[in-house]
Amino acid sequence: MNNEGILHMDSQSLREYCVKILSQENVPEEEAFYVADSLVMANLRGVDSHGVSRMPIYMKRLREGLVNNKFSFEVQKEAPGSMLIDGQNSLGAVLGVKVMELAIEKAKESGAVMVGVKNSNHYGTASYFSMLALKENMIGISASNAPSTMAPWGGVKPFLGTNPFSFSIPAGNEKPIVIDMATSVVARGKIILAAKNGQKIPEGWAINTEGEVTTDAEEALVGSVLPFAGPKGYAISLLIDILAGILSGGPYGPHINNLYENFNDPQCVGHFFGVINIEKFIPVENFKSMVDEMIREIKDTPKAKNTQEIFLPGEIEYNIQEKRLKTGVPITIPVLEDLKELGKMYSVPFTVKVIDND
Amino acid sequence: MNNEGILHMDSQSLREYCVKILSQENVPEEEAFYVADSLVMANLRGVDSHGVSRMPIYMKRLREGLVNNKFSFEVQKEAPGSMLIDGQNSLGAVLGVKVMELAIEKAKESGAVMVGVKNSNHYGTASYFSMLALKENMIGISASNAPSTMAPWGGVKPFLGTNPFSFSIPAGNEKPIVIDMATSVVARGKIILAAKNGQKIPEGWAINTEGEVTTDAEEALVGSVLPFAGPKGYAISLLIDILAGILSGGPYGPHINNLYENFNDPQCVGHFFGVINIEKFIPVENFKSMVDEMIREIKDTPKAKNTQEIFLPGEIEYNIQEKRLKTGVPITIPVLEDLKELGKMYSVPFTVKVIDND
Repeated sequence: MNNEGILHMDSQSLREYCVKILSQENVPEEEAFYVADSLVMANLRGVDSHGVSRMPIYMKRLREGLVNNKFSFEVQKEAPGSMLIDGQNSLGAVLGVKVMELAIEKAKESGAVMVGVKNSNHYGTASYFSMLALKENMIGISASNAPSTMAPWGGVKPFLGTNPFSFSIPAGNEKPIVIDMATSVVARGKIILAAKNGQKIPEGWAINTEGEVTTDAEEALVGSVLPFAGPKGYAISLLIDILAGILSGGPYGPHINNLYENFNDPQCVGHFFGVINIEKFIPVENFKSMVDEMIREIKDTPKAKNTQEIFLPGEIEYNIQEKRLKTGVPITIPVLEDLKELGKMYSVPFTVKVIDND
Repeated sequence: MNNEGILHMDSQSLREYCVKILSQENVPEEEAFYVADSLVMANLRGVDSHGVSRMPIYMKRLREGLVNNKFSFEVQKEAPGSMLIDGQNSLGAVLGVKVMELAIEKAKESGAVMVGVKNSNHYGTASYFSMLALKENMIGISASNAPSTMAPWGGVKPFLGTNPFSFSIPAGNEKPIVIDMATSVVARGKIILAAKNGQKIPEGWAINTEGEVTTDAEEALVGSVLPFAGPKGYAISLLIDILAGILSGGPYGPHINNLYENFNDPQCVGHFFGVINIEKFIPVENFKSMVDEMIREIKDTPKAKNTQEIFLPGEIEYNIQEKRLKTGVPITIPVLEDLKELGKMYSVPFTVKVIDND
């Protein structure tokens, strides 16, 4: 343990431990893997707010029967370029993987497929799903609505979620471009994590219930997070809520149930997935070599005074992943205690290996 | 004329005048209408930077044979959910309308259609095309790349364009939601104007050649405009350049030719259009009533201290349009002189009516 109260855990055994815990609520192994992998991948990519710190709440909702522990779904409507799917309250990560697999298969013929999913749950990081398209040389799209945490521009009361979206774009020799962002200034998960760790948040992330800017994470959580770029982030968040929520026939913003607060009802989260099959536009090799060239040109562009390197979207996350695969995933003591607590509750021995990087 | 040196011109006769001017370069009437209408619509919606002030440069490029005056195109690749189109250097606005019409027709069966267009030209405002889907109860998507004006995040040299995008979403009794934004903080035109007037620009609009934030408009002009929300706007701009440029088999950023500076080559702009047919997801009436409900809920949400009204994306533009249809489109004297100059050059009598609002 270093002096910041952080342990570095081996990602492989961390994933296995999470799978075992999920299995205790009768989540089938393949499905447990997708959930555990999506969380550990978030940690590996440096997005700790969406990592294994979510295990306790996922388990609580499974335990209380608020999420179906076995994957089921129904394709309610289908056309060559579209699908409407009822997620039947399955685990978000499992739905995300299964729906993207369907969409990828369909896009082999159709060129592009857009999918609305209703009756889902929190699905982790949006890019976990958009990235599934990369191995098939397709562009992946993933977006989700979320319970109200963000006021409309000009308002003070949360209405929209932080509604994240992701696009993944294949490259050739270079790393793929992976865009993944919340429509708030920062993901609310970062504020949750700060609150959990008793840390302050920077000014400009959120307002309290009075509409004043706050650096208190607890105050921010009952207040409202701010959209990025003001009215522009507000507009994009609204768009995602319409695509993922209304278009799929599900609820939006204030009518989506909170992961952490409502223990009576399913969340009814909606997702929007998309796949664009590059091959149906231009030859894949041309596309990839052009993306490679663009990436190299951008990285070679003159840098600002205090900039060491210009990064492409997702590049920093790939670098962190490469490092963390060796040095382990940093886990704070409170998150570690939560994970161990789950082990005790379900009689699963805590078998996660700690990596000593000294 | 009011005391600010602005005349209010009747939009109908302004459009007719622009059609006549365009016809002088042998642009067929229907095609001239789309170009003129797209410009006048921008003025009507309050987006004067993309209005009839563009007529002189459009005419110059037509005159010099840098843009094809007669619409032609080729569908180079087609799948049920996708199309790749070679715009054959047609006028951007004509291509936009024709391609959206094709996509809308195709989406009636396919549910969703995504289209890449290469070899096009400046197409005006992105929403002019996304809005075409509204009358068919579909969601319209429109995006375009543009010549370099914006450095990648951390860089100092322009690479990406301000690459705008638009989504139009039908409503029932309420006004449609029309999202249309550039991926920069502000249009470069505002900085040009500030420089002309010897005014400072606000912090956060642009950087100088060292990559430092500058309030000096002259410094900003040789520097770079900034993307909105820093790395997030950079990522979205990059995404649009990949979808509109690379995916369509055309150039991107620094390889696109400047509308105002390059008089040797076609621009080679790329677009990305999309249509989502709501009916293939949920009944149109359900969708529209849900959007109406969402709009009303947002407008009823508690307001911040200095906010009179909460607006939906596009609402302000609809309000301006309603007003300007009666009071006319405000045209500055320099723009008026340019328009009259075109009339002289092509022997077209200046028949635009001035509206006296006193």
